[in-house]
Amino acid sequence: MTMTSRETAAEGLGAAALLDRTRTVVDPELRSIVESLPGSIRRVAMYHFGWEHADGSPAAGRTGKAIRPALVLAAARALGGDPHTAVRAAAAVELAHNFTLLHDDIVDGDPTRRGRPTAWTVFGIPDALVAGDAMLALAVRLLAEDAHPASAAASARLAGCVIELCAGQQADCAFEGRGPHEVSLDECLAMATAKTGALLGCACALGALYAGAGGAEIEALDAFGREAGLAFQLIDDLIGIWGDPERTGKPAGADLAAHKKSLPVVAALASGTAAGAELAELYGRPVLDDAGVRHAADAVERAGGRDWAQTQAADRMARAVQQLSRAVPDLTAAGELLALAEFVTRRTR
Amino acid sequence: MTMTSRETAAEGLGAAALLDRTRTVVDPELRSIVESLPGSIRRVAMYHFGWEHADGSPAAGRTGKAIRPALVLAAARALGGDPHTAVRAAAAVELAHNFTLLHDDIVDGDPTRRGRPTAWTVFGIPDALVAGDAMLALAVRLLAEDAHPASAAASARLAGCVIELCAGQQADCAFEGRGPHEVSLDECLAMATAKTGALLGCACALGALYAGAGGAEIEALDAFGREAGLAFQLIDDLIGIWGDPERTGKPAGADLAAHKKSLPVVAALASGTAAGAELAELYGRPVLDDAGVRHAADAVERAGGRDWAQTQAADRMARAVQQLSRAVPDLTAAGELLALAEFVTRRTR
Repeated sequence: MTMTSRETAAEGLGAAALLDRTRTVVDPELRSIVESLPGSIRRVAMYHFGWEHADGSPAAGRTGKAIRPALVLAAARALGGDPHTAVRAAAAVELAHNFTLLHDDIVDGDPTRRGRPTAWTVFGIPDALVAGDAMLALAVRLLAEDAHPASAAASARLAGCVIELCAGQQADCAFEGRGPHEVSLDECLAMATAKTGALLGCACALGALYAGAGGAEIEALDAFGREAGLAFQLIDDLIGIWGDPERTGKPAGADLAAHKKSLPVVAALASGTAAGAELAELYGRPVLDDAGVRHAADAVERAGGRDWAQTQAADRMARAVQQLSRAVPDLTAAGELLALAEFVTRRTR
Repeated sequence: MTMTSRETAAEGLGAAALLDRTRTVVDPELRSIVESLPGSIRRVAMYHFGWEHADGSPAAGRTGKAIRPALVLAAARALGGDPHTAVRAAAAVELAHNFTLLHDDIVDGDPTRRGRPTAWTVFGIPDALVAGDAMLALAVRLLAEDAHPASAAASARLAGCVIELCAGQQADCAFEGRGPHEVSLDECLAMATAKTGALLGCACALGALYAGAGGAEIEALDAFGREAGLAFQLIDDLIGIWGDPERTGKPAGADLAAHKKSLPVVAALASGTAAGAELAELYGRPVLDDAGVRHAADAVERAGGRDWAQTQAADRMARAVQQLSRAVPDLTAAGELLALAEFVTRRTR
């Protein structure tokens, strides 16, 4: 259940097949909703999802891995619901996720997303910003208009989750401007929980809501998604330092070159070790060359940041499973959720 | 009922007292909700609403005229509902309105709002953008969580309205980049309906929803608000050209100096008159000095743009009243709505 665990062929196929099936079911719903957007907003959204090129001509479409909608459907199934009734909820979560991507790319000034220029670089900040707003509103409307008895509670929950995502994104930006010792590990964990864990938790909670689950089960599913989400972020941060450039498509140590205060880095900085002090000195330099990046990666490792993140990821996954078992005592019924959680914490890019 | 109608003391007091009463009832609800926002997002929102200075110290608070929440409460009353049950809906509409202000100020690059530096100039674009997102989510959550039986329908309607506001804002931006003859009057009216009319219509519709009104009445109230909103925009555009600088706080002809394609301007450009051609030539110049601005205002007037806008505003107000009478045949029950509509189309700044 940790990043070092080896996948079996069967498990790997399981999660991949699950994601494929999710895309097959959710994408048509998602696409028809996005196509309902007015005028130029539609164009930005269609481009962002990969369904159109910048000039409006049709594109192959690569809407992302569909982990969040897969969690909605898997959670509904794990709690005895019919996943087909939760397809709109799954589409709404994916819309909300893509709203955050559109706005985060503006806020972070990121030039590429899924191997293509980001929407704001193609259409300008105003159009990308407004398209993101419309996608958030669309996500909420989709839930609020759904005839399912849980739809109002789901809509309120998604809106509450978005506020948490915003707080996480805001904290992430604020951390960038602080010095190497001015971000505590607790703050960093809280930020990652808000920015990554909250939406994975919300996806699982929405699935439970749509299965007609009770309050305690819904909260347990939410906690499962949050813990798995934090494990996912820890692995993602490890990949940002030690990921294989051939697989990540980014240069080795990209996060270090960008002075990112990722979880392993903050753990190293907070370690009180000589290696942590070395890292702080390196992060104090405006630019790190390749040797500097290798030196920084080495310092994170020697300061215990790598081990801490791996242990923490394993611990979070254990907690996730524990939370899940509160709602689904016989975990064999939750095989899909476990396969998805394992998939996101095992990925190497 | 037109901009040239003279107010009586009683009417004037009516609308002003109504807005005061609305602020007294809605502001505490609004403020306690905004105060619930996490961390730095709360700070941006508190500043935007005028409850805090940039340094976080308490400020006198000047949250705007409260026209939209007043419309929610007045519509609820006009349809026989208890306005007190609609206070959260009124607060939600005001939150949604302020979300658009936060994002519009970024998109338009506006430096001041209500006589103070805009939030993005104080806190930076990332924080202002994310705070706007959170305010939209908060507005929707407020409705979705409300125990009132109409709350889910209200939440879906508000979300749908936000999509329309986004389309209007996007069209407004797109018009800026087009030549003097490349925006038709129909496009301009559609943009103003989406950008200004939609939320006023939504406010009235939400009041009707909360009063337990039927589908036809809700749509009639929405149409009333939209027509009144368009009248409001027409008057606003006239003030942008001929408003008294002492009252508007902006130099005379500010909209002309900014080459804004406001409704009277587009009507003049589309008039096929010699004066319209003069105006097109003036708008073709990168900069207009004071004499140029006066010349342009004169050209709009000679091309019939001023008369058209005044007639159109009166016509829209007549249509608004007609729509209202479909839902409230005895208009004496709709005195508050009429007073508010008259107020927004009479204002001189």
